[in-house]
Amino acid sequence: MERVEISKLYRKNNLYENKTNEITVCGWVRSLRCSKKIGFIDLNDGSCISSLQVVFKDKLKNFEEISHIGVGACISVLGVLVSTPLAAQLFEFHATSISIKGASTSDYPLQKKKHSLEYMRTIAHLRARTNTFSSIFRIRSSASYAIHKFLQEDDFNYIHTPIITGNDAEGAGEAFSVTSFDLKNEKLKKFDFSKDFFGKHVMLTVSGQLQAECMATALSKVYTFAPTFRAENSNTQRHAAEFWMLEPEIAFANLNDIINLASRLIKYIVKHVLNFCEKDLEFLNKTYDEKLLIRLENILQTDFDVITYTQAINILEDSENNFEYEVSWGKDLQSEHERYLTEKIFKKPIFVIDYPKNIKAFYMRQNDDEKTVAAMDMLFPGIGEMIGGSQREERLDLLLKRIKELNLKKEDYWWYLELRKYGTVEHSGFGLGFERLLMFLTSFSNIRDVMPFPRTVKNAEF
Amino acid sequence: MERVEISKLYRKNNLYENKTNEITVCGWVRSLRCSKKIGFIDLNDGSCISSLQVVFKDKLKNFEEISHIGVGACISVLGVLVSTPLAAQLFEFHATSISIKGASTSDYPLQKKKHSLEYMRTIAHLRARTNTFSSIFRIRSSASYAIHKFLQEDDFNYIHTPIITGNDAEGAGEAFSVTSFDLKNEKLKKFDFSKDFFGKHVMLTVSGQLQAECMATALSKVYTFAPTFRAENSNTQRHAAEFWMLEPEIAFANLNDIINLASRLIKYIVKHVLNFCEKDLEFLNKTYDEKLLIRLENILQTDFDVITYTQAINILEDSENNFEYEVSWGKDLQSEHERYLTEKIFKKPIFVIDYPKNIKAFYMRQNDDEKTVAAMDMLFPGIGEMIGGSQREERLDLLLKRIKELNLKKEDYWWYLELRKYGTVEHSGFGLGFERLLMFLTSFSNIRDVMPFPRTVKNAEF
Repeated sequence: MERVEISKLYRKNNLYENKTNEITVCGWVRSLRCSKKIGFIDLNDGSCISSLQVVFKDKLKNFEEISHIGVGACISVLGVLVSTPLAAQLFEFHATSISIKGASTSDYPLQKKKHSLEYMRTIAHLRARTNTFSSIFRIRSSASYAIHKFLQEDDFNYIHTPIITGNDAEGAGEAFSVTSFDLKNEKLKKFDFSKDFFGKHVMLTVSGQLQAECMATALSKVYTFAPTFRAENSNTQRHAAEFWMLEPEIAFANLNDIINLASRLIKYIVKHVLNFCEKDLEFLNKTYDEKLLIRLENILQTDFDVITYTQAINILEDSENNFEYEVSWGKDLQSEHERYLTEKIFKKPIFVIDYPKNIKAFYMRQNDDEKTVAAMDMLFPGIGEMIGGSQREERLDLLLKRIKELNLKKEDYWWYLELRKYGTVEHSGFGLGFERLLMFLTSFSNIRDVMPFPRTVKNAEF
Repeated sequence: MERVEISKLYRKNNLYENKTNEITVCGWVRSLRCSKKIGFIDLNDGSCISSLQVVFKDKLKNFEEISHIGVGACISVLGVLVSTPLAAQLFEFHATSISIKGASTSDYPLQKKKHSLEYMRTIAHLRARTNTFSSIFRIRSSASYAIHKFLQEDDFNYIHTPIITGNDAEGAGEAFSVTSFDLKNEKLKKFDFSKDFFGKHVMLTVSGQLQAECMATALSKVYTFAPTFRAENSNTQRHAAEFWMLEPEIAFANLNDIINLASRLIKYIVKHVLNFCEKDLEFLNKTYDEKLLIRLENILQTDFDVITYTQAINILEDSENNFEYEVSWGKDLQSEHERYLTEKIFKKPIFVIDYPKNIKAFYMRQNDDEKTVAAMDMLFPGIGEMIGGSQREERLDLLLKRIKELNLKKEDYWWYLELRKYGTVEHSGFGLGFERLLMFLTSFSNIRDVMPFPRTVKNAEF
């Protein structure tokens, strides 16, 4: 069927305005008001946030039926687009005929009133039919594409690293197990992993980094963008058990190179979304956070400061703020510390580098002071850590030493170590939590609202 | 560090040829030959298939060391690019200085000789350093991007549907279970799923379709592109336990619309890869399959035939071929049947539509004959099914009837059914097995060779 998407009508110089030939538009009824002779329908098809005002008159054969159609019904309308220079909307759509594809009923959960975000999570199968969530999901799509576009145009190769892994890369105890055994079988007494599908115990990946390193030390510039998992029992607004992560990994690159890459990437995404989701952002700005647009536009002009962990600790120690968690060199920064730095001191996103090695992963490159590693976290106001990365330890002897110190088994990393044995090279990469980015782009503070079907503690509905 | 990627040197009108200013290139030594006064290194950085010929002379301080460098070593070379109009290669790189980043050893597994594909799978962490696998993975990246580009430019929204699901959408018994219980704990006797992370039994998704339908009936045009999983114990060349699937889902679209979309998409991807991976495809054509390029180019000119399942059965029954599996109306087509149709009869990809409802999933739309459903499979020569899709059953009463007939629990599908209760609409979609597509694009016949780290029966290494 030839339908014209409503988004196409709202484009500049659209082909449809004030033409005599009829076109078909389809969508769902957002609201309807009707007198005895004329009715108005706000019709939305999800292609853009703007609804189309459909005007229908009593000359319609099914005028009576249409005038009683329920909110949420799906209809197809044949008609012409007419300019309305004196009205609030740019134009309206004069219906020649309307057919009902799918009726709705009075218990439709999205009647025209404001619902709480909590309630909307219980109807995740329908919430994309609202302005709020369709905007968020269009922004999500647009930001995803911006990531691919930016990296592909810079000659990065998209790599699909495995989701199922035998390696517990960095998440000791935080990985979900995967099995083909029938867990519902009462007789299942003991797990003989040699008889499981993969012949051993496997988990859901917490990061594609180690495999991405294999590819970076062959193709130079690669990235993964895929789901990752944490079985972390923390029921906060910022944590989900399943989330998407972007992980670029680059050979011949040091910490400065990836700080530079992260900065350019963030600006590119923000610019892309401002361009392609202008109306969606305007709606969120108007409805939820009137500082959203200005904050995003500021990002484009901002140079992100880079401070060392040691400098960060000094600033925090000098502050008169009462922190819940102790500030002391060697301890990890807590969310309250990160927010203090970005919100009170710098008032913008910052990079913190050179963390103590004891609070960071084994693969990070040791600095010459032998106490810190070439790590970087990018912290955002209101969100905290959005990006975490590092230069990787490319020196085989130092990497082996670290693996031993941390009581890891070097046999588990035989292939990772071989990258250092054969033609090793300085290389660096980072992980960007995609949902955290979306929280920044939309100003939504709960991660559950920026993913279509969130998976969190005790929740895997839909 | 400012390095110039080798791919940039090979671009038309590159900025570097015959300039006096020196540039730095980096990469891994593919081969080296050396006399007492002059040496030649084939240097590859993975940015393109072409290596760069580095020429170094005994004026180098470390000439002796460089002349004994091992295959696989990583080096950085400062020098100038010089045209060589009379030589086999377009130009060579005259080294002013060479520094060794990472040495290699004589046991480096990728010495300059041909290795079997089977052997290469055992060194998946290194195989991307070969022409064969770097080509395949560049093609994989390029094809992924083509998918996003095609769909985004057609206003589709990219949706991330969940990987962890409580719904066994279509893969009864073929889904992996996911749990946060410690399976290695000997004392774990019985699974009380209410105490598991999600409070119930969950699995890895076999398809994002049902959730994509929720989004399509709100945003009109969406797609998922994500990993999917099958715990199918079939150790064939065409099956992996983890694979990527593209799933477009469109409201206001019928079977013809998605056949049309699939045709345009396939052509777009082929054209994109022919443009952006020309040298890689030429290499595979020369080395593995001299008909690859012509086959891909033919796709651009081809109209894909559409036949009904009933017509397919008639053709197969009329054939004098001895099939291993019986041909009879109501039985599913086997791989040998699909290949016979595409390779012997049509000699190109075809769509088969209108399959018997009893061999297809519950959600497919029933045709008026009440025996078949509006399904389509796109079959490829040498591969078999690459795409499977359908118009979805949008009529609540018929969907409920089918769920009952198949002894499914309608409570499990409450949200899916509500899409039909509130504003239901005709909609259609398909799943494209991304690795199958890559097998077609590269002419590689084993799925293990088109994914970086394949997961198959008894294999989750790396």
